[in-house]
Amino acid sequence: MHTRAALYQARYGHPDTPVPDAGSALIDQLLTHRSVRAYLPDPVTDDTLCALIAAAQSAASSSNLHAWSVVAVRDPARKDRLAHLAGDQAHVRQAPLFLVWLADLARLESVAAQAGEPDEALDYLEMFEVAVIDAALAAQNAVAAAESLGLGTVYIGGIRNRPEDVAAELQLPSRVVAVFGLCVGTPDPQVPTAVKPRPAQSVVLHHEHYALPPQQAGLARYDQAMAAFYESQQMKVRGTWSRHTARRIRDAAALTGRDRLVEALGKRGFKLR
Amino acid sequence: MHTRAALYQARYGHPDTPVPDAGSALIDQLLTHRSVRAYLPDPVTDDTLCALIAAAQSAASSSNLHAWSVVAVRDPARKDRLAHLAGDQAHVRQAPLFLVWLADLARLESVAAQAGEPDEALDYLEMFEVAVIDAALAAQNAVAAAESLGLGTVYIGGIRNRPEDVAAELQLPSRVVAVFGLCVGTPDPQVPTAVKPRPAQSVVLHHEHYALPPQQAGLARYDQAMAAFYESQQMKVRGTWSRHTARRIRDAAALTGRDRLVEALGKRGFKLR
Repeated sequence: MHTRAALYQARYGHPDTPVPDAGSALIDQLLTHRSVRAYLPDPVTDDTLCALIAAAQSAASSSNLHAWSVVAVRDPARKDRLAHLAGDQAHVRQAPLFLVWLADLARLESVAAQAGEPDEALDYLEMFEVAVIDAALAAQNAVAAAESLGLGTVYIGGIRNRPEDVAAELQLPSRVVAVFGLCVGTPDPQVPTAVKPRPAQSVVLHHEHYALPPQQAGLARYDQAMAAFYESQQMKVRGTWSRHTARRIRDAAALTGRDRLVEALGKRGFKLR
Repeated sequence: MHTRAALYQARYGHPDTPVPDAGSALIDQLLTHRSVRAYLPDPVTDDTLCALIAAAQSAASSSNLHAWSVVAVRDPARKDRLAHLAGDQAHVRQAPLFLVWLADLARLESVAAQAGEPDEALDYLEMFEVAVIDAALAAQNAVAAAESLGLGTVYIGGIRNRPEDVAAELQLPSRVVAVFGLCVGTPDPQVPTAVKPRPAQSVVLHHEHYALPPQQAGLARYDQAMAAFYESQQMKVRGTWSRHTARRIRDAAALTGRDRLVEALGKRGFKLR
Protein backbone atom coordinates (compact mmCIF):
# COMPACT_ATOMS: atom_id res chain seq x y z
CA MET A 1 0.00 0.00 0.00
CA HIS A 2 1.37 3.36 -1.06
CA THR A 3 1.33 6.28 1.29
CA ARG A 4 -0.20 9.47 -0.09
CA ALA A 5 3.24 11.13 -0.11
CA ALA A 6 4.59 8.34 -2.32
CA LEU A 7 1.72 8.87 -4.76
CA TYR A 8 2.50 12.59 -5.06
CA GLN A 9 6.25 11.96 -5.36
CA ALA A 10 5.68 9.51 -8.22
CA ARG A 11 3.18 11.81 -9.95
CA TYR A 12 5.59 14.75 -9.93
CA GLY A 13 8.82 12.77 -10.13
CA HIS A 14 10.35 14.71 -7.27
CA PRO A 15 11.02 13.78 -3.62
CA ASP A 16 10.14 17.28 -2.34
CA THR A 17 6.64 17.39 -3.85
CA PRO A 18 4.13 19.18 -1.59
CA VAL A 19 1.44 16.82 -0.27
CA PRO A 20 -1.90 18.40 0.65
CA ASP A 21 -3.88 17.39 3.73
CA ALA A 22 -7.00 17.13 1.57
CA GLY A 23 -7.45 13.79 -0.11
CA SER A 24 -9.73 10.85 -0.76
CA ALA A 25 -9.51 7.28 -1.99
CA LEU A 26 -10.80 8.52 -5.36
CA ILE A 27 -8.06 11.14 -5.68
CA ASP A 28 -5.47 8.54 -4.64
CA GLN A 29 -6.67 6.36 -7.49
CA LEU A 30 -6.55 9.17 -10.04
CA LEU A 31 -2.96 9.89 -8.93
CA THR A 32 -1.93 6.32 -9.81
CA HIS A 33 -3.06 6.66 -13.46
CA ARG A 34 -0.63 5.31 -16.00
CA SER A 35 -1.02 4.46 -19.69
CA VAL A 36 -1.20 0.73 -20.42
CA ARG A 37 0.01 -0.56 -23.78
CA ALA A 38 0.13 -4.34 -23.14
CA TYR A 39 -3.01 -6.34 -22.40
CA LEU A 40 -4.11 -9.85 -21.55
CA PRO A 41 -6.62 -11.38 -24.01
CA ASP A 42 -9.39 -11.50 -21.36
CA PRO A 43 -12.50 -9.90 -22.87
CA VAL A 44 -14.13 -6.76 -21.50
CA THR A 45 -17.72 -7.96 -21.11
CA ASP A 46 -20.88 -6.08 -22.04
CA ASP A 47 -21.65 -5.97 -18.32
CA THR A 48 -18.40 -4.10 -17.62
CA LEU A 49 -18.90 -1.91 -20.67
CA CYS A 50 -22.33 -0.94 -19.32
CA ALA A 51 -20.71 0.36 -16.12
CA LEU A 52 -18.06 2.29 -18.08
CA ILE A 53 -20.68 3.95 -20.30
CA ALA A 54 -22.86 4.84 -17.30
CA ALA A 55 -19.83 6.55 -15.79
CA ALA A 56 -19.13 8.32 -19.09
CA GLN A 57 -22.71 9.54 -19.40
CA SER A 58 -22.58 10.83 -15.83
CA ALA A 59 -20.14 13.54 -16.90
CA ALA A 60 -21.60 16.95 -17.62
CA SER A 61 -22.75 17.71 -21.18
CA SER A 62 -22.83 21.23 -22.62
CA SER A 63 -26.42 22.53 -22.47
CA ASN A 64 -27.49 18.89 -21.97
CA LEU A 65 -27.03 18.34 -25.72
CA HIS A 66 -25.09 15.02 -25.46
CA ALA A 67 -23.09 15.83 -28.59
CA TRP A 68 -21.00 12.65 -28.45
CA SER A 69 -21.16 8.94 -29.17
CA VAL A 70 -18.77 6.03 -28.76
CA VAL A 71 -18.23 2.93 -30.87
CA ALA A 72 -17.14 -0.23 -29.03
CA VAL A 73 -14.89 -2.25 -31.34
CA ARG A 74 -14.00 -5.85 -30.45
CA ASP A 75 -13.85 -7.50 -33.89
CA PRO A 76 -10.15 -8.40 -34.40
CA ALA A 77 -10.22 -7.59 -38.12
CA ARG A 78 -11.73 -4.15 -37.52
CA LYS A 79 -9.28 -3.44 -34.67
CA ASP A 80 -6.47 -4.42 -37.03
CA ARG A 81 -7.68 -1.98 -39.68
CA LEU A 82 -8.13 0.80 -37.12
CA ALA A 83 -4.67 0.12 -35.68
CA HIS A 84 -3.27 0.53 -39.17
CA LEU A 85 -5.15 3.80 -39.70
CA ALA A 86 -3.98 5.14 -36.32
CA GLY A 87 -0.27 4.87 -37.05
CA ASP A 88 0.16 1.12 -36.60
CA GLN A 89 0.01 0.97 -32.84
CA ALA A 90 0.17 -2.68 -31.77
CA HIS A 91 -1.78 -2.13 -28.56
CA VAL A 92 -4.89 -1.16 -30.58
CA ARG A 93 -4.80 -4.67 -32.05
CA GLN A 94 -4.01 -6.32 -28.71
CA ALA A 95 -6.55 -4.59 -26.47
CA PRO A 96 -9.74 -6.68 -26.24
CA LEU A 97 -11.84 -3.50 -26.43
CA PHE A 98 -11.13 -0.39 -28.49
CA LEU A 99 -13.48 2.53 -27.87
CA VAL A 100 -13.66 5.23 -30.54
CA TRP A 101 -15.05 8.45 -29.04
CA LEU A 102 -16.95 10.61 -31.48
CA ALA A 103 -17.91 14.26 -31.82
CA ASP A 104 -21.53 13.69 -32.85
CA LEU A 105 -23.67 16.44 -34.37
CA ALA A 106 -25.68 14.00 -36.55
CA ARG A 107 -27.99 13.12 -33.68
CA LEU A 108 -28.71 16.82 -33.10
CA GLU A 109 -29.33 17.25 -36.84
CA SER A 110 -31.97 14.51 -36.66
CA VAL A 111 -33.55 16.06 -33.54
CA ALA A 112 -33.83 19.42 -35.32
CA ALA A 113 -35.25 17.79 -38.45
CA GLN A 114 -37.93 15.99 -36.48
CA ALA A 115 -38.82 19.24 -34.70
CA GLY A 116 -39.09 20.96 -38.06
CA GLU A 117 -36.39 23.48 -37.13
CA PRO A 118 -33.29 24.57 -39.05
CA ASP A 119 -29.90 23.54 -37.61
CA GLU A 120 -27.72 26.43 -38.71
CA ALA A 121 -25.71 26.45 -35.46
CA LEU A 122 -24.22 23.05 -36.32
CA ASP A 123 -22.11 24.72 -39.02
CA TYR A 124 -20.08 26.67 -36.47
CA LEU A 125 -16.71 25.85 -34.88
CA GLU A 126 -18.38 26.40 -31.49
CA MET A 127 -20.54 23.30 -31.94
CA PHE A 128 -17.53 21.22 -32.97
CA GLU A 129 -15.76 22.42 -29.82
CA VAL A 130 -18.83 21.54 -27.72
CA ALA A 131 -18.85 18.04 -29.20
CA VAL A 132 -15.11 17.54 -28.59
CA ILE A 133 -15.47 18.73 -24.98
CA ASP A 134 -18.50 16.50 -24.38
CA ALA A 135 -16.62 13.47 -25.76
CA ALA A 136 -13.52 14.21 -23.67
CA LEU A 137 -15.42 14.68 -20.39
CA ALA A 138 -17.28 11.42 -20.99
CA ALA A 139 -14.15 9.48 -21.91
CA GLN A 140 -12.22 10.66 -18.86
CA ASN A 141 -14.98 9.40 -16.57
CA ALA A 142 -14.81 6.06 -18.39
CA VAL A 143 -11.05 5.93 -17.83
CA ALA A 144 -11.41 6.54 -14.10
CA ALA A 145 -14.18 3.92 -13.97
CA ALA A 146 -12.09 1.38 -15.89
CA GLU A 147 -9.12 1.84 -13.58
CA SER A 148 -11.38 1.41 -10.52
CA LEU A 149 -12.25 -2.04 -11.95
CA GLY A 150 -8.60 -3.01 -12.39
CA LEU A 151 -8.56 -2.33 -16.13
CA GLY A 152 -5.92 -0.33 -17.98
CA THR A 153 -6.34 2.21 -20.77
CA VAL A 154 -4.43 4.39 -23.20
CA TYR A 155 -5.76 7.21 -25.36
CA ILE A 156 -5.06 6.99 -29.11
CA GLY A 157 -4.83 10.44 -30.76
CA GLY A 158 -3.60 8.70 -33.91
CA ILE A 159 -7.24 7.98 -34.76
CA ARG A 160 -7.25 11.57 -36.10
CA ASN A 161 -4.49 10.80 -38.62
CA ARG A 162 -6.94 9.66 -41.33
CA PRO A 163 -10.45 10.86 -40.39
CA GLU A 164 -12.19 9.93 -43.65
CA ASP A 165 -10.87 6.36 -43.60
CA VAL A 166 -11.85 5.92 -39.95
CA ALA A 167 -15.31 7.30 -40.77
CA ALA A 168 -15.71 4.78 -43.59
CA GLU A 169 -14.62 1.92 -41.33
CA LEU A 170 -17.12 2.88 -38.62
CA GLN A 171 -19.90 3.91 -41.04
CA LEU A 172 -20.01 7.40 -39.55
CA PRO A 173 -22.61 9.69 -41.12
CA SER A 174 -21.91 13.30 -42.02
CA ARG A 175 -21.29 15.52 -38.97
CA VAL A 176 -19.74 12.69 -36.94
CA VAL A 177 -15.96 12.35 -36.56
CA ALA A 178 -13.55 10.48 -34.28
CA VAL A 179 -11.99 12.57 -31.50
CA PHE A 180 -9.69 9.90 -30.06
CA GLY A 181 -9.53 6.17 -29.46
CA LEU A 182 -9.15 4.40 -26.13
CA CYS A 183 -7.69 0.94 -25.61
CA VAL A 184 -9.28 -0.92 -22.68
CA GLY A 185 -8.26 -4.24 -21.18
CA THR A 186 -6.64 -6.11 -18.34
CA PRO A 187 -3.02 -4.97 -18.03
CA ASP A 188 -0.48 -7.68 -18.81
CA PRO A 189 1.30 -8.14 -15.46
CA GLN A 190 4.45 -9.22 -17.32
CA VAL A 191 4.83 -5.71 -18.74
CA PRO A 192 5.30 -3.24 -15.91
CA THR A 193 3.92 0.27 -16.30
CA ALA A 194 5.02 3.43 -14.57
CA VAL A 195 3.45 6.69 -13.43
CA LYS A 196 4.77 9.36 -15.80
CA PRO A 197 5.82 12.56 -14.01
CA ARG A 198 3.93 15.81 -14.51
CA PRO A 199 5.30 19.36 -14.38
CA ALA A 200 5.08 21.10 -11.00
CA GLN A 201 1.75 22.76 -10.29
CA SER A 202 3.39 26.17 -10.76
CA VAL A 203 3.53 25.38 -14.51
CA VAL A 204 -0.20 24.85 -15.08
CA LEU A 205 -1.88 26.60 -12.13
CA HIS A 206 -2.26 30.38 -12.10
CA HIS A 207 -3.84 32.63 -9.50
CA GLU A 208 -6.16 35.46 -10.60
CA HIS A 209 -4.35 35.91 -13.92
CA TYR A 210 -2.08 34.03 -16.31
CA ALA A 211 1.70 34.46 -16.27
CA LEU A 212 4.33 32.76 -18.43
CA PRO A 213 7.70 33.66 -16.80
CA PRO A 214 6.96 31.88 -13.47
CA GLN A 215 6.58 28.61 -15.42
CA GLN A 216 10.22 28.51 -16.49
CA ALA A 217 11.71 27.13 -13.27
CA GLY A 218 9.09 24.37 -13.19
CA LEU A 219 9.76 23.46 -16.81
CA ALA A 220 13.51 23.21 -16.16
CA ARG A 221 12.81 20.87 -13.24
CA TYR A 222 10.43 18.92 -15.49
CA ASP A 223 13.21 18.29 -18.00
CA GLN A 224 15.22 16.77 -15.14
CA ALA A 225 12.29 14.68 -13.88
CA MET A 226 11.56 13.35 -17.38
CA ALA A 227 15.25 12.59 -17.96
CA ALA A 228 15.23 10.48 -14.81
CA PHE A 229 12.00 8.85 -15.96
CA TYR A 230 13.37 8.00 -19.42
CA GLU A 231 16.42 6.46 -17.76
CA SER A 232 14.42 4.46 -15.21
CA GLN A 233 12.22 3.11 -18.02
CA GLN A 234 15.23 2.42 -20.25
CA MET A 235 13.57 4.58 -22.92
CA LYS A 236 15.89 5.84 -25.60
CA VAL A 237 14.63 9.41 -25.91
CA ARG A 238 16.92 11.85 -27.67
CA GLY A 239 17.38 15.01 -25.63
CA THR A 240 15.20 16.54 -22.96
CA TRP A 241 11.41 16.74 -22.76
CA SER A 242 11.74 20.34 -24.01
CA ARG A 243 13.71 19.28 -27.09
CA HIS A 244 11.43 16.31 -27.72
CA THR A 245 8.37 18.58 -27.41
CA ALA A 246 9.88 21.25 -29.67
CA ARG A 247 10.39 18.63 -32.39
CA ARG A 248 6.76 17.50 -31.95
CA ILE A 249 5.46 20.98 -32.87
CA ARG A 250 8.15 22.04 -35.32
CA ASP A 251 6.22 21.78 -38.58
CA ALA A 252 3.17 20.43 -40.36
CA ALA A 253 4.90 17.12 -41.08
CA ALA A 254 5.18 16.50 -37.32
CA LEU A 255 1.37 16.33 -37.19
CA THR A 256 1.37 12.93 -39.01
CA GLY A 257 -1.48 13.83 -41.34
CA ARG A 258 -3.45 15.92 -38.90
CA ASP A 259 -2.29 19.11 -40.63
CA ARG A 260 -5.21 18.51 -43.00
CA LEU A 261 -7.82 18.27 -40.23
CA VAL A 262 -9.77 21.31 -41.50
CA GLU A 263 -10.10 19.75 -44.95
CA ALA A 264 -11.01 16.34 -43.48
CA LEU A 265 -13.64 17.84 -41.16
CA GLY A 266 -15.07 19.76 -44.10
CA LYS A 267 -15.53 16.48 -45.94
CA ARG A 268 -17.17 15.05 -42.81
CA GLY A 269 -19.78 17.83 -42.84
CA PHE A 270 -18.23 20.23 -40.34
CA LYS A 271 -18.16 23.69 -41.94
CA LEU A 272 -16.36 25.25 -38.94
CA ARG A 273 -17.73 28.74 -39.61
CA MET B 1 -27.31 4.88 1.54
CA HIS B 2 -28.41 4.39 -2.05
CA THR B 3 -28.40 0.96 -3.59
CA ARG B 4 -26.63 0.67 -6.91
CA ALA B 5 -29.97 0.09 -8.66
CA ALA B 6 -31.25 3.39 -7.28
CA LEU B 7 -28.17 5.19 -8.64
CA TYR B 8 -28.76 3.79 -12.14
CA GLN B 9 -32.49 4.52 -12.02
CA ALA B 10 -31.82 8.15 -11.08
CA ARG B 11 -29.10 8.52 -13.71
CA TYR B 12 -31.35 7.28 -16.50
CA GLY B 13 -34.66 8.52 -15.08
CA HIS B 14 -36.29 5.16 -15.64
CA PRO B 15 -37.29 2.37 -13.20
CA ASP B 16 -36.36 -0.38 -15.68
CA THR B 17 -32.76 0.72 -16.18
CA PRO B 18 -30.34 -2.21 -16.56
CA VAL B 19 -27.87 -2.45 -13.66
CA PRO B 20 -24.54 -4.14 -14.39
CA ASP B 21 -22.88 -6.51 -11.95
CA ALA B 22 -19.62 -4.63 -12.44
CA GLY B 23 -19.17 -1.64 -10.18
CA SER B 24 -17.01 0.18 -7.69
CA ALA B 25 -17.29 2.92 -5.10
CA LEU B 26 -15.69 5.27 -7.60
CA ILE B 27 -18.27 4.49 -10.30
CA ASP B 28 -21.05 4.88 -7.72
CA GLN B 29 -19.73 8.35 -6.97
CA LEU B 30 -19.52 9.33 -10.63
CA LEU B 31 -23.14 8.20 -11.05
CA THR B 32 -24.26 10.67 -8.37
CA HIS B 33 -22.85 13.69 -10.23
CA ARG B 34 -25.12 16.69 -10.37
CA SER B 35 -24.50 20.32 -11.25
CA VAL B 36 -24.43 22.66 -8.26
CA ARG B 37 -25.44 26.30 -8.74
CA ALA B 38 -25.79 27.47 -5.09
CA TYR B 39 -22.82 27.57 -2.73
CA LEU B 40 -21.97 28.37 0.87
CA PRO B 41 -19.35 31.12 1.31
CA ASP B 42 -16.79 28.69 2.83
CA PRO B 43 -13.51 29.15 0.97
CA VAL B 44 -11.84 26.43 -1.06
CA THR B 45 -8.37 26.45 0.45
CA ASP B 46 -5.05 26.27 -1.38
CA ASP B 47 -4.57 22.88 0.25
CA THR B 48 -7.77 21.56 -1.34
CA LEU B 49 -6.92 23.26 -4.64
CA CYS B 50 -3.56 21.44 -4.60
CA ALA B 51 -5.36 18.09 -4.45
CA LEU B 52 -7.76 19.07 -7.25
CA ILE B 53 -4.89 20.16 -9.52
CA ALA B 54 -2.91 16.99 -8.79
CA ALA B 55 -5.97 15.01 -9.87
CA ALA B 56 -6.31 17.17 -12.99
CA GLN B 57 -2.67 16.70 -13.92
CA SER B 58 -3.02 12.95 -13.46
CA ALA B 59 -5.24 12.78 -16.56
CA ALA B 60 -3.55 11.80 -19.79
CA SER B 61 -2.10 14.56 -21.98
CA SER B 62 -1.74 14.24 -25.77
CA SER B 63 1.90 13.34 -26.57
CA ASN B 64 2.74 14.49 -23.02
CA LEU B 65 2.55 18.11 -24.26
CA HIS B 66 0.45 19.48 -21.36
CA ALA B 67 -1.27 21.99 -23.64
CA TRP B 68 -3.51 23.42 -20.92
CA SER B 69 -3.49 25.74 -17.94
CA VAL B 70 -6.03 26.82 -15.35
CA VAL B 71 -6.55 30.14 -13.60
CA ALA B 72 -7.94 30.01 -10.05
CA VAL B 73 -10.09 33.09 -9.47
CA ARG B 74 -11.23 33.97 -5.94
CA ASP B 75 -11.17 37.79 -6.05
CA PRO B 76 -14.86 38.82 -5.77
CA ALA B 77 -14.47 41.77 -8.15
CA ARG B 78 -12.86 39.57 -10.83
CA LYS B 79 -15.48 36.85 -10.36
CA ASP B 80 -18.14 39.51 -10.77
CA ARG B 81 -16.62 40.70 -14.05
CA LEU B 82 -16.22 37.13 -15.34
CA ALA B 83 -19.83 36.32 -14.34
CA HIS B 84 -20.92 39.32 -16.40
CA LEU B 85 -18.84 38.21 -19.40
CA ALA B 86 -20.21 34.65 -19.16
CA GLY B 87 -23.85 35.58 -19.52
CA ASP B 88 -24.50 36.94 -16.01
CA GLN B 89 -24.64 33.64 -14.20
CA ALA B 90 -25.08 34.37 -10.48
CA HIS B 91 -23.35 31.17 -9.35
CA VAL B 92 -20.06 32.37 -10.87
CA ARG B 93 -20.19 35.28 -8.42
CA GLN B 94 -21.33 33.12 -5.52
CA ALA B 95 -18.90 30.22 -5.86
CA PRO B 96 -15.84 30.81 -3.64
CA LEU B 97 -13.58 29.43 -6.38
CA PHE B 98 -13.96 29.88 -10.12
CA LEU B 99 -11.55 27.88 -12.26
CA VAL B 100 -11.01 29.01 -15.85
CA TRP B 101 -9.60 26.15 -17.92
CA LEU B 102 -7.40 27.23 -20.80
CA ALA B 103 -6.25 25.83 -24.12
CA ASP B 104 -2.59 26.83 -23.79
CA LEU B 105 -0.20 26.80 -26.75
CA ALA B 106 1.84 29.76 -25.40
CA ARG B 107 3.88 27.50 -23.15
CA LEU B 108 4.73 25.28 -26.12
CA GLU B 109 5.65 28.36 -28.14
CA SER B 110 8.14 29.32 -25.42
CA VAL B 111 9.53 25.78 -25.26
CA ALA B 112 10.13 25.81 -29.03
CA ALA B 113 11.71 29.28 -28.89
CA GLN B 114 14.14 28.21 -26.18
CA ALA B 115 15.03 25.11 -28.21
CA GLY B 116 15.66 27.29 -31.24
CA GLU B 117 13.01 25.46 -33.25
CA PRO B 118 10.13 26.79 -35.35
CA ASP B 119 6.60 26.16 -34.03
CA GLU B 120 4.65 25.92 -37.27
CA ALA B 121 2.37 23.11 -35.99
CA LEU B 122 0.82 25.51 -33.47
CA ASP B 123 -0.99 27.24 -36.35
CA TYR B 124 -3.13 24.17 -37.08
CA LEU B 125 -6.65 23.30 -35.90
CA GLU B 126 -5.22 19.96 -34.72
CA MET B 127 -3.18 21.66 -32.00
CA PHE B 128 -6.19 23.69 -30.86
CA GLU B 129 -8.14 20.42 -30.63
CA VAL B 130 -5.29 18.81 -28.67
CA ALA B 131 -5.34 21.72 -26.22
CA VAL B 132 -9.13 21.58 -25.80
CA ILE B 133 -9.00 17.82 -25.19
CA ASP B 134 -6.14 18.17 -22.69
CA ALA B 135 -8.05 20.86 -20.78
CA ALA B 136 -11.25 18.81 -20.73
CA LEU B 137 -9.60 15.59 -19.52
CA ALA B 138 -7.86 17.52 -16.74
CA ALA B 139 -11.00 19.37 -15.69
CA GLN B 140 -13.11 16.23 -15.50
CA ASN B 141 -10.60 14.62 -13.13
CA ALA B 142 -10.77 17.79 -11.00
CA VAL B 143 -14.58 17.53 -10.94
CA ALA B 144 -14.48 13.90 -9.75
CA ALA B 145 -11.86 14.85 -7.15
CA ALA B 146 -13.92 17.82 -5.92
CA GLU B 147 -17.04 15.70 -5.52
CA SER B 148 -15.05 13.09 -3.59
CA LEU B 149 -14.23 15.87 -1.09
CA GLY B 150 -17.88 16.89 -0.73
CA LEU B 151 -17.59 19.91 -3.02
CA GLY B 152 -19.98 20.77 -5.84
CA THR B 153 -19.21 22.06 -9.32
CA VAL B 154 -20.83 23.32 -12.51
CA TYR B 155 -19.19 23.89 -15.88
CA ILE B 156 -19.62 27.34 -17.46
CA GLY B 157 -19.54 27.25 -21.27
CA GLY B 158 -20.60 30.89 -21.24
CA ILE B 159 -16.94 31.82 -20.71
CA ARG B 160 -16.66 31.35 -24.50
CA ASN B 161 -19.24 34.09 -25.18
CA ARG B 162 -16.64 36.88 -25.20
CA PRO B 163 -13.17 35.34 -25.56
CA GLU B 164 -11.23 38.58 -26.07
CA ASP B 165 -12.73 40.24 -22.97
CA VAL B 166 -12.06 37.13 -20.86
CA ALA B 167 -8.48 37.07 -22.19
CA ALA B 168 -7.99 40.71 -21.20
CA GLU B 169 -9.38 40.07 -17.70
CA LEU B 170 -7.05 37.09 -17.14
CA GLN B 171 -4.04 38.64 -18.93
CA LEU B 172 -3.88 35.73 -21.35
CA PRO B 173 -1.06 35.93 -23.89
CA SER B 174 -1.51 35.13 -27.55
CA ARG B 175 -2.27 31.43 -28.20
CA VAL B 176 -4.10 31.00 -24.89
CA VAL B 177 -7.91 30.99 -24.71
CA ALA B 178 -10.58 29.94 -22.21
CA VAL B 179 -12.25 26.60 -22.95
CA PHE B 180 -14.79 26.66 -20.10
CA GLY B 181 -15.16 27.82 -16.53
CA LEU B 182 -15.89 25.68 -13.48
CA CYS B 183 -17.56 26.88 -10.28
CA VAL B 184 -16.29 25.04 -7.18
CA GLY B 185 -17.58 25.28 -3.62
CA THR B 186 -19.51 23.69 -0.82
CA PRO B 187 -23.09 23.05 -1.97
CA ASP B 188 -25.70 25.11 -0.12
CA PRO B 189 -27.75 22.43 1.67
CA GLN B 190 -30.80 24.73 1.54
CA VAL B 191 -30.88 24.41 -2.26
CA PRO B 192 -31.45 20.78 -3.21
CA THR B 193 -29.87 19.46 -6.39
CA ALA B 194 -30.96 16.54 -8.50
CA VAL B 195 -29.33 13.97 -10.76
CA LYS B 196 -30.34 14.92 -14.31
CA PRO B 197 -31.35 11.92 -16.42
CA ARG B 198 -29.29 10.79 -19.38
CA PRO B 199 -30.49 9.11 -22.59
CA ALA B 200 -30.46 5.30 -22.60
CA GLN B 201 -27.10 3.75 -23.48
CA SER B 202 -28.55 2.71 -26.86
CA VAL B 203 -28.43 6.40 -27.85
CA VAL B 204 -24.69 6.97 -27.35
CA LEU B 205 -23.16 3.46 -27.44
CA HIS B 206 -22.61 1.70 -30.76
CA HIS B 207 -21.14 -1.72 -31.46
CA GLU B 208 -18.61 -2.16 -34.29
CA HIS B 209 -20.11 0.68 -36.33
CA TYR B 210 -22.27 3.78 -35.92
CA ALA B 211 -26.03 3.73 -36.58
CA LEU B 212 -28.56 6.57 -36.24
CA PRO B 213 -32.00 4.86 -36.56
CA PRO B 214 -31.62 2.68 -33.42
CA GLN B 215 -31.23 5.89 -31.39
CA GLN B 216 -34.80 7.07 -32.07
CA ALA B 217 -36.58 4.89 -29.49
CA GLY B 218 -34.12 5.95 -26.80
CA LEU B 219 -34.54 9.62 -27.68
CA ALA B 220 -38.34 9.34 -27.46
CA ARG B 221 -37.98 7.78 -24.00
CA TYR B 222 -35.53 10.56 -23.09
CA ASP B 223 -38.13 13.20 -23.90
CA GLN B 224 -40.43 11.44 -21.41
CA ALA B 225 -37.70 11.15 -18.75
CA MET B 226 -36.77 14.83 -19.09
CA ALA B 227 -40.43 15.89 -18.96
CA ALA B 228 -40.76 14.03 -15.66
CA PHE B 229 -37.53 15.64 -14.48
CA TYR B 230 -38.67 19.18 -15.40
CA GLU B 231 -41.91 18.56 -13.52
CA SER B 232 -40.20 17.09 -10.44
CA GLN B 233 -37.86 20.10 -10.32
CA GLN B 234 -40.71 22.55 -10.96
CA MET B 235 -38.75 23.85 -13.96
CA LYS B 236 -40.80 25.77 -16.46
CA VAL B 237 -39.34 24.36 -19.68
CA ARG B 238 -41.40 24.91 -22.81
CA GLY B 239 -41.84 21.70 -24.76
CA THR B 240 -39.80 18.52 -24.74
CA TRP B 241 -36.03 18.05 -24.53
CA SER B 242 -36.08 17.54 -28.31
CA ARG B 243 -37.86 20.85 -28.92
CA HIS B 244 -35.67 22.66 -26.38
CA THR B 245 -32.56 21.19 -28.03
CA ALA B 246 -33.74 22.06 -31.54
CA ARG B 247 -34.16 25.70 -30.48
CA ARG B 248 -30.65 25.64 -28.99
CA ILE B 249 -29.10 24.80 -32.39
CA ARG B 250 -31.55 26.64 -34.66
CA ASP B 251 -29.38 29.56 -35.75
CA ALA B 252 -26.26 31.59 -35.13
CA ALA B 253 -28.10 33.84 -32.65
CA ALA B 254 -28.70 30.80 -30.41
CA LEU B 255 -24.92 30.58 -29.90
CA THR B 256 -24.94 33.74 -27.72
CA GLY B 257 -21.89 35.28 -29.33
CA ARG B 258 -20.02 32.04 -29.93
CA ASP B 259 -20.88 32.17 -33.64
CA ARG B 260 -17.81 34.44 -33.93
CA LEU B 261 -15.45 31.94 -32.29
CA VAL B 262 -13.26 31.58 -35.40
CA GLU B 263 -12.73 35.34 -35.53
CA ALA B 264 -12.10 35.55 -31.78
CA LEU B 265 -9.60 32.68 -31.85
CA GLY B 266 -7.84 34.37 -34.78
CA LYS B 267 -7.40 37.47 -32.66
CA ARG B 268 -6.09 35.26 -29.85
CA GLY B 269 -3.34 33.90 -32.13
CA PHE B 270 -4.98 30.64 -33.25
CA LYS B 271 -4.76 30.50 -37.04
CA LEU B 272 -6.71 27.20 -37.22
CA ARG B 273 -5.14 26.14 -40.51
